[in-house]
Amino acid sequence: MERLTVELGARSYPILIGPGLLADGGLFSSHVGTRDLLLVSNETVAPLWAPRLRAALAGARIVECILPDGEAHKGLPAWSRIIDTLAEARMNRDCLILALGGGVIGDVAGFAAACWQRGVDFIQLPTTLLAQVDSAVGGKTAINHPSGKNLIGAFHQPRAVLADTDTLTTLPERQLRAGLAEVIKCGLIRDAGLFAWLEDNVEAVIDRDPQALVFAIRSACECKAAIVAADEHERGERALLNLGHTFAHAIETGTGHGTWLHGEAVAMGLDLAAQLSARVGWLGIPEAARIRALLVRAGLPVEPPRMGAARAFGLMSMDKKVREGRIRLVLLERIGLAVCTNEYPAEALQTVLEDRFGDAGR
Amino acid sequence: MERLTVELGARSYPILIGPGLLADGGLFSSHVGTRDLLLVSNETVAPLWAPRLRAALAGARIVECILPDGEAHKGLPAWSRIIDTLAEARMNRDCLILALGGGVIGDVAGFAAACWQRGVDFIQLPTTLLAQVDSAVGGKTAINHPSGKNLIGAFHQPRAVLADTDTLTTLPERQLRAGLAEVIKCGLIRDAGLFAWLEDNVEAVIDRDPQALVFAIRSACECKAAIVAADEHERGERALLNLGHTFAHAIETGTGHGTWLHGEAVAMGLDLAAQLSARVGWLGIPEAARIRALLVRAGLPVEPPRMGAARAFGLMSMDKKVREGRIRLVLLERIGLAVCTNEYPAEALQTVLEDRFGDAGR
Repeated sequence: MERLTVELGARSYPILIGPGLLADGGLFSSHVGTRDLLLVSNETVAPLWAPRLRAALAGARIVECILPDGEAHKGLPAWSRIIDTLAEARMNRDCLILALGGGVIGDVAGFAAACWQRGVDFIQLPTTLLAQVDSAVGGKTAINHPSGKNLIGAFHQPRAVLADTDTLTTLPERQLRAGLAEVIKCGLIRDAGLFAWLEDNVEAVIDRDPQALVFAIRSACECKAAIVAADEHERGERALLNLGHTFAHAIETGTGHGTWLHGEAVAMGLDLAAQLSARVGWLGIPEAARIRALLVRAGLPVEPPRMGAARAFGLMSMDKKVREGRIRLVLLERIGLAVCTNEYPAEALQTVLEDRFGDAGR
Repeated sequence: MERLTVELGARSYPILIGPGLLADGGLFSSHVGTRDLLLVSNETVAPLWAPRLRAALAGARIVECILPDGEAHKGLPAWSRIIDTLAEARMNRDCLILALGGGVIGDVAGFAAACWQRGVDFIQLPTTLLAQVDSAVGGKTAINHPSGKNLIGAFHQPRAVLADTDTLTTLPERQLRAGLAEVIKCGLIRDAGLFAWLEDNVEAVIDRDPQALVFAIRSACECKAAIVAADEHERGERALLNLGHTFAHAIETGTGHGTWLHGEAVAMGLDLAAQLSARVGWLGIPEAARIRALLVRAGLPVEPPRMGAARAFGLMSMDKKVREGRIRLVLLERIGLAVCTNEYPAEALQTVLEDRFGDAGR
């Protein structure tokens, strides 16, 4: 079992990575104690992994809230169901919420934990690669609004993240590949060595080689933990983690939440950010080609939907400050070095958008 | 104009108290700058005071969300309307929400500010005595759930509190009296001098003598600011501010939110807490009588609804940890000294509840 810590003073917490964690009663008793528990999961994950967890928690009072699966269920109705379950079970401020599932479950259960009684504890039990390497770490919780992703949420750190790699054995391959996008992102932002390792080992990760998986998860969590520790509330450096995400959110909203997996949209966004970075002359063209090649080997999309440049730009600017046609974006100076900036020519973005999303408006 | 500061490090903010603040364009420009604004108010307050505010904010981009008036509209639907308005207006993280109204508006608008884009700035513009002395200060935001008051919320501090005492000229007398309950509470918790001043001046406050109002508001805000600065997230001392509130929440939920004004329920709760404190032998019987006498002179209720002791106890324990029949309560050792405890005989609470709420269950 690998162990990292997200260093946030009194709110520091461990990330544990390895096989067998969900079955480890001793591990849970040290984190859970005698508190009332609400288990939040979805209809796909719960039948597979909740029995193991229930056995590890034998003797505790556990109430359950099992939601439908999918990004379409990351909205107010799902969050309200969790809140209603907490109310019905008369859970008080000392209760603890367990979020067993992927990014959607972690985000919606985490946001319910942030709001119930003005904040109760929760533990992330991520069961997808994407959640294990990204969304379960760092305390960003949110739900979607019809007009955009993650528009409603809170910063609310979990008490622990237990990434049981056994759960990846039941993960559909499409979702495994989608999770890889966030690992590639971490390499691009600040870990050229991780990027090079992925170029050597991407097939081993996709084949679920246990050691390769643990290395990839640990490396991505190290990247994320360091950035979150430096900038918990995204006033500066943390924005680098949004590499590709402004493009991704436009794709997800534009195609209807759930059509593209989040990681697929992020992969597309990484390619678009690399293209734009190359067009403005920061990133070398060979490096942009290496990025696309790795995404292709990972089985991730590099062709955006033909929604039109104007629509894509409109959706990208939904939750962003737009100044003189420029949206603040994360771009690449090289593989392993990202910057957050709006100091780029507005035309360059327009050209990339028209080139890739099409120009339906004209 | 009186000025206090809530000392919370980087999140410190001023409380300004006095006449004419809503019309003071210079004051607003220093707090608002050039940001996009959402004005949240209700159908009673907006016609009276929004014109003055709009004039002071001339030139700014202001979107408005005017909610129905009353505690019944402090729930998910009202909060959703604010969120939808923010989304429709494409407000970004740099926007600022202005909460113009009483405690309901401040709580629901503050909770929307806490959640929109994981937290945006807001300014409290309280227009009731209760909001000016209590709910606008301290960063507790919340909405009600059908099963209880304030079950969903966040700690989210405002950037400023501007308490314009002119707004109290249009406040119905019943609401003015209700606000007095929280001022009396502050005296009971930690300011025997304020309690004695109220015994001398309660009629002047009710007659809206400007100097008496400013003194009462300032004194209550000083009490609250000191306690919040010492314990922002209610891990200890801040719980003292809940004197009377566990009883009050039971009354409000049991009679249907909005039947009793919050301040009226608090007044009733103060009397019940004093009665229980006297019954367990901490508070002198003459002091309990002084408390009831002041509440009566303030025109506040001292007779609870006959909902039955069992129902009252059930509602009181909704959001509280109950150990061996004892709910953690704030009780009085004397006027000016409150303690938070569950170290009291369970029978004493039962006796007081049966005596005052009736024993409908038997």
